[in-house]
Amino acid sequence: MSRRVLLTGATGFIGRHLPALLTERGYDVTPVSRATGVDLLAPGAAEAVVAAAQPTHLLHLAWYAVPGAFWTSPENVRWVEASLALLRAFVAAGGERAVMAGTCAEYDWSGGVCVEGVTPLAPATLYGRAKNALREVAEGYAEQEGRSLAWGRIFFVYGPGEAPGRLVSSVAEALVSGEEAMTSEGDQRRDFLHVEDLAGAFAALLDSAVTGPVNLASGEAPAVREIVDEVARAAGRPELVRRGAVPTREGDPPLIAADFTRLREEVGWRPRHTLREGIEDTVAWWRSTTLPAR
Amino acid sequence: MSRRVLLTGATGFIGRHLPALLTERGYDVTPVSRATGVDLLAPGAAEAVVAAAQPTHLLHLAWYAVPGAFWTSPENVRWVEASLALLRAFVAAGGERAVMAGTCAEYDWSGGVCVEGVTPLAPATLYGRAKNALREVAEGYAEQEGRSLAWGRIFFVYGPGEAPGRLVSSVAEALVSGEEAMTSEGDQRRDFLHVEDLAGAFAALLDSAVTGPVNLASGEAPAVREIVDEVARAAGRPELVRRGAVPTREGDPPLIAADFTRLREEVGWRPRHTLREGIEDTVAWWRSTTLPAR
Repeated sequence: MSRRVLLTGATGFIGRHLPALLTERGYDVTPVSRATGVDLLAPGAAEAVVAAAQPTHLLHLAWYAVPGAFWTSPENVRWVEASLALLRAFVAAGGERAVMAGTCAEYDWSGGVCVEGVTPLAPATLYGRAKNALREVAEGYAEQEGRSLAWGRIFFVYGPGEAPGRLVSSVAEALVSGEEAMTSEGDQRRDFLHVEDLAGAFAALLDSAVTGPVNLASGEAPAVREIVDEVARAAGRPELVRRGAVPTREGDPPLIAADFTRLREEVGWRPRHTLREGIEDTVAWWRSTTLPAR
Repeated sequence: MSRRVLLTGATGFIGRHLPALLTERGYDVTPVSRATGVDLLAPGAAEAVVAAAQPTHLLHLAWYAVPGAFWTSPENVRWVEASLALLRAFVAAGGERAVMAGTCAEYDWSGGVCVEGVTPLAPATLYGRAKNALREVAEGYAEQEGRSLAWGRIFFVYGPGEAPGRLVSSVAEALVSGEEAMTSEGDQRRDFLHVEDLAGAFAALLDSAVTGPVNLASGEAPAVREIVDEVARAAGRPELVRRGAVPTREGDPPLIAADFTRLREEVGWRPRHTLREGIEDTVAWWRSTTLPAR
């Protein structure tokens, strides 16, 4: 039986790794994104792309993702609409199983360790609200229509090709350029996953029968300072790190960790990269794309 | 300063009472519904109607409302999309304050008395999930954009013009036709509001500065059997009621009551109809529209 997956966000930071991973697992992949000429925000776009792909599976990663701006942008509202229209078109065309990208920002972060179905959901941002609301409708709709749906919650991610200005990318880019990296004290602890591992987790989740929310995370939550130290080590420039030069953001939660049980036990997946290897890989990529400062 | 309100669902069971109530309060009203040629599910419909009405206020009552079917219909998903598109168009055109219709089905009913911001939200149906998800995005979006938004949660409603086959309409129609009315034992208690009072509560809420969820309810929760008794009394045919002829639905919550404090204290509104007067009014309407059985 042929399994055809419609992959959205297919040229994004995470999505670009999925065509190869899904092909390996035996799927015929139809990758779409604005770069392939498909704008899912346009009326009728979802029906057209579903009619062309006739997918049995849907992996929906597309969203508004401009660093910083995505937390509060009204584009989040449009993506709720577009994602529901896509899911309806998929169901109407006989689609069987969908996986959509959620976020750790759906959780109430005050508890620290986030457990699916246990930790209260209390998104503090429009991005988190939009994702949480999409999940609520998508789960109810899929259940009502007798389709299988899983919701992969993304935590923190880094790796080659990350947009500049985020934690790992900004420090790596500075250090391989021979510039100082200004960081906070870095006591906050976060679950960070290498982007290839995150993509692998999405592929494994799609290929499983697990339904509902699943944390896509490493299960470890190093301090931000440890991550910075690994970048400095891989770049060979620890002397350029100015720790404490930037104040810790007010209200930044001390710990955002993921319970890893569903992904490990039910999906049967584990990350391939250690933090050290993942950071070395990332720094090597920055080295290959960055000119040294003069 | 002219206040212009765009009213959706304007010819529905609740909405048809709003044009007069809003005009009394000094609003210029643009009433829309499919009966006025506006299909909000059509792409671009929201932008067109907002461009024509240039509303400062939005009262959004339209939704899929076919009795029975609305709990599970996939139309709920389309109405989430259409409602968000409408709110975006309203905000883009400079709209200031919106009120949207929510539902008591957003609440976890196991606690009995529903209190805004306190009772957990745990919708058990696609309808409840869709409304709850719309609320979550709409509230976050309005806050982000600096607009005022309130969410009026509808509990149980009855009155002249109600669709046949619901509690009050089915008993009233049967009794004024001289036919038997089959009812359950009727131990369940529910907060029922006369439709004109519910419409009045929406008008008062729109005309206030109150934001967030507000229960639109009477604050009383008579047993269903008491409501049936009032219908029988008003119809003068108590002997036609076959109490216990229908089993109580499995899992039907024994109590769905509303805390009435926000509506009474913050909005400053109280219902005008007692249950007895409201039922008499409703039975009189059924008498005026029903032919006696032969």
